[in-house]
Amino acid sequence: MLSTMQDVPLTVTRILTHGMTIHGKSQVTTWTGEPEPHRRSFADIGARASQLAHALRDELGVDGDQRVATLMWNNAEHVEAYLAIPSMGAVLHTLNLRLPAEQLVWIVNHADDKVVLANGSLLPLLAPLLPHLPSVEHVVVSGPGDRSVLDGLAPTVHEYEELIAGRPTSYAWPELDERRAAAMCYTSGTTGDPKGVVYSHRSIYLHSMQVNMAESMGLTDKDTTLVVVPQFHVNAWGLPHATFMTGVNMLMPDRFLQPAPLAEMIERERPTHAAAVPTIWQGLLAEVTAKPRDLSSMASVTIGGAACPPSLMEAYDKLGVRLCHAWGMTETSPLGTMSNPPAGLTDEQEWPYRITQGRFPAGVEARLVGPGGEHLPWDGESAGELEVRGAWIAGAYYGGADGEDLRPEDKFSEDGWLKTGDVGVISTDGYLTLTDRAKDVIKSGGEWISSVDLENALMAHPDVAEAAVVAVPDEKWGERPLATVVLKEGATADYAALRTFLAQSVAKWQLPERWTVIPAVPKTSVGKFDKKVIRRQYADGELDITQL
Amino acid sequence: MLSTMQDVPLTVTRILTHGMTIHGKSQVTTWTGEPEPHRRSFADIGARASQLAHALRDELGVDGDQRVATLMWNNAEHVEAYLAIPSMGAVLHTLNLRLPAEQLVWIVNHADDKVVLANGSLLPLLAPLLPHLPSVEHVVVSGPGDRSVLDGLAPTVHEYEELIAGRPTSYAWPELDERRAAAMCYTSGTTGDPKGVVYSHRSIYLHSMQVNMAESMGLTDKDTTLVVVPQFHVNAWGLPHATFMTGVNMLMPDRFLQPAPLAEMIERERPTHAAAVPTIWQGLLAEVTAKPRDLSSMASVTIGGAACPPSLMEAYDKLGVRLCHAWGMTETSPLGTMSNPPAGLTDEQEWPYRITQGRFPAGVEARLVGPGGEHLPWDGESAGELEVRGAWIAGAYYGGADGEDLRPEDKFSEDGWLKTGDVGVISTDGYLTLTDRAKDVIKSGGEWISSVDLENALMAHPDVAEAAVVAVPDEKWGERPLATVVLKEGATADYAALRTFLAQSVAKWQLPERWTVIPAVPKTSVGKFDKKVIRRQYADGELDITQL
Repeated sequence: MLSTMQDVPLTVTRILTHGMTIHGKSQVTTWTGEPEPHRRSFADIGARASQLAHALRDELGVDGDQRVATLMWNNAEHVEAYLAIPSMGAVLHTLNLRLPAEQLVWIVNHADDKVVLANGSLLPLLAPLLPHLPSVEHVVVSGPGDRSVLDGLAPTVHEYEELIAGRPTSYAWPELDERRAAAMCYTSGTTGDPKGVVYSHRSIYLHSMQVNMAESMGLTDKDTTLVVVPQFHVNAWGLPHATFMTGVNMLMPDRFLQPAPLAEMIERERPTHAAAVPTIWQGLLAEVTAKPRDLSSMASVTIGGAACPPSLMEAYDKLGVRLCHAWGMTETSPLGTMSNPPAGLTDEQEWPYRITQGRFPAGVEARLVGPGGEHLPWDGESAGELEVRGAWIAGAYYGGADGEDLRPEDKFSEDGWLKTGDVGVISTDGYLTLTDRAKDVIKSGGEWISSVDLENALMAHPDVAEAAVVAVPDEKWGERPLATVVLKEGATADYAALRTFLAQSVAKWQLPERWTVIPAVPKTSVGKFDKKVIRRQYADGELDITQL
Repeated sequence: MLSTMQDVPLTVTRILTHGMTIHGKSQVTTWTGEPEPHRRSFADIGARASQLAHALRDELGVDGDQRVATLMWNNAEHVEAYLAIPSMGAVLHTLNLRLPAEQLVWIVNHADDKVVLANGSLLPLLAPLLPHLPSVEHVVVSGPGDRSVLDGLAPTVHEYEELIAGRPTSYAWPELDERRAAAMCYTSGTTGDPKGVVYSHRSIYLHSMQVNMAESMGLTDKDTTLVVVPQFHVNAWGLPHATFMTGVNMLMPDRFLQPAPLAEMIERERPTHAAAVPTIWQGLLAEVTAKPRDLSSMASVTIGGAACPPSLMEAYDKLGVRLCHAWGMTETSPLGTMSNPPAGLTDEQEWPYRITQGRFPAGVEARLVGPGGEHLPWDGESAGELEVRGAWIAGAYYGGADGEDLRPEDKFSEDGWLKTGDVGVISTDGYLTLTDRAKDVIKSGGEWISSVDLENALMAHPDVAEAAVVAVPDEKWGERPLATVVLKEGATADYAALRTFLAQSVAKWQLPERWTVIPAVPKTSVGKFDKKVIRRQYADGELDITQL
């Protein structure tokens, strides 16, 4: 028996047409560095999105599901691209301007991008890539910046404002299948080629609803959100679409991501909400500690991308700003969890919940999978790899124009769940606490040893400056932990003493047998421990190992 | 280009499994009339929903998409039915206990219900119908009430608690197509047979998300909602499913719908939200005026089903309780609009928005259609019939087991939109104000005349106690208004004076030519003007008409 309900697709088009009419007065405010920021109403954004679609179709020949890339900061024009490109049936491809040049070239070629919309200030980054991007036929430039850097390097170059000027402010948007591709974003794994996640109209629409649910960010047209998280990072955590759905005003920092202008825009524009990674909040805290600013308009802040140090949360609590943990990844659109505590608790009782990654919404099913593939209980103790399932969770990666979608075994389970690569525990009331990356966990005799637990315990010793623990092959146990230690100035290596010290906080079977001192822990470009370097050094016999 | 997202269906099953785990501690509190209400956790509700599904399948043989009806008050067992029946693949059919017996019989036969779950207190209503319900094989009874009234009338009778006891507390729920039927509800039109709306898993899931969005009811597990609107009225406005999705505690009045117990349950249980029709709030106001009670826990109240008198809103404002208008109907799941004012307004500026029906969410597209079928602008002045479209809006009525779905012309447009039968205007910022039922509007020479406007203007005259204006056929204009007036004690009919009085507030071409005095305006069983009686009396020549 089928229902008698209408079969109406969930599309970005609907978000666009709704936002520009019912919430036509809401605004996107873009920071300019000038005395006054730039303000544009949702009604105007909608009209200009139509103009952009006409320009892309009629002038640049974008058709079908061709890819249109953006290399842009967070600003009003980028929001227009977010709405126009999927609504016309094409695919928005946001390029991460922090990636190395060779990865950007690989990604643009893999996506087969036809057009790149770029901000003028980013042309020095784009220009040297263009000779290596044969699919790109047009570059469309908006915002300040010297255009001449493109001379001789680019295909056809257009000024955004000139390109859209005078075109019709409405568009006969096609009725699209909700499972059609709307946007794509590549993950930049440290190993192998980047992998493309292709979001559908349906996934973006559902994710937008979830973001606006009271249990998540819960924003309305009475709110203004400061969108610091870049639009090239998982669609700015879904905010540009979610805000257009309910008329939430957007405050966009453009290229002014430094603590001083952020502090100024918060004090002047008084956003009620903000979203950014911990590093931003660290920097802002230092700024307002040196030069006090009123941040109190921000009732809530969504913080994700990395675990937030509890001390940072406490510091912001004192400023009247509540940081709320969220967990997600490119493959999860990204909203996976948010750490709103349950009801009826005191501030003190809420604390243990606030420092978790949070709870899953109904749209995200979760399970923990142990070292043997078994499903683990939610008891707050059993640690396993987190696998998730849902309508805004990736089930594959884009295989390129001629390829099948990719479903690598280490990323997707046989029954289609996403393997997040994160290891953690889930409490009986559904709160997730992540402890390790799966690749950093030591699989020893069918049990898992947390490298992070060992590192934290080691770094509590007065002689230890830094410590990194990695898995190394072991004939008997499969894997065993190798402890690499950076000693403090003047300290000498006493592995037996360190081992005894460790034994106070971890189980005996988890204690490392292999020890070495290194001058510094190798780090990635974003400052994380680069454990694959240590594993390679060990495999190549470059480390001087002491066996206890 | 297809997306790489997982293809996960949106189902009631997911609402059930999510609510019973992540929000297992949330509660359904059912009023009992005893010193202590009955409390049951979501975890227990979920376990019992599994037991109910096992009982329905294994003991009563419910299979496939068979219909299971409920004739129940709002209580924990009814919530269990809401979750178990759709999740097992069957269809929940809520029976409106206020309908006349012959309509209930027609509805049960049309839906071909196999099982009826009934509350003991409603058996006196059910028993006399049973001989006329050949499809009903089983009656399952819960709650207090004399079972003996079924003797000799019913097929197999089961005690709910005995039926589910000892069965497994988990169930291998099937993976269902999200467009599959989940629940059905019949509208009780004043003309013709009742019409069945069949909700899908998808429509219920999306509607639940919308209810929980901050712009709508915006509830979380920190809330308790007092669900006065019956579960047999459009799924209690979607609350039992929406609450389970985010862990909102439910306070269920069962059969205790009188003002005194409602006041007591509010004061004792301190719900943060409530949902009911205006009549309930009128009654409660009288109660707490006579015997003051603390209602202040209810930060917000959703009021719908009929327009709320502004005076009632003002009275509750003074009690610290904010009534918020919502508009919807059985065919719209029902959330169509909610009257949250836009941002940045004073209380006084908010008032004109609060008394509208409110704004549409992104999931509900709206248009106004004029007398000639033309689409009208949203200018706050052009009045047309409201038509809506969306994923939780009906596109047809159930045609019965062997019939095609019904798409009557007066209910659905050629392009599939629902004709709501409501006439109104929409402001430039998207706020809907309903003025008339389409069938009560007078279509005169290609223009519409609002019968409600004429009635309100007439009733402002000191001689007039009541007035009803109806359309009557007119050779020249198609239709013209007939004014029927009930005079106050001692007043005499002076139609010319009334016409002059009317001319002060309505356009000259709208003034009625036909007048009559009647002893009282005919009313429906729920107290609304029954204009079809007046139209029939006019057509039959029963009224003494004066032509001006």
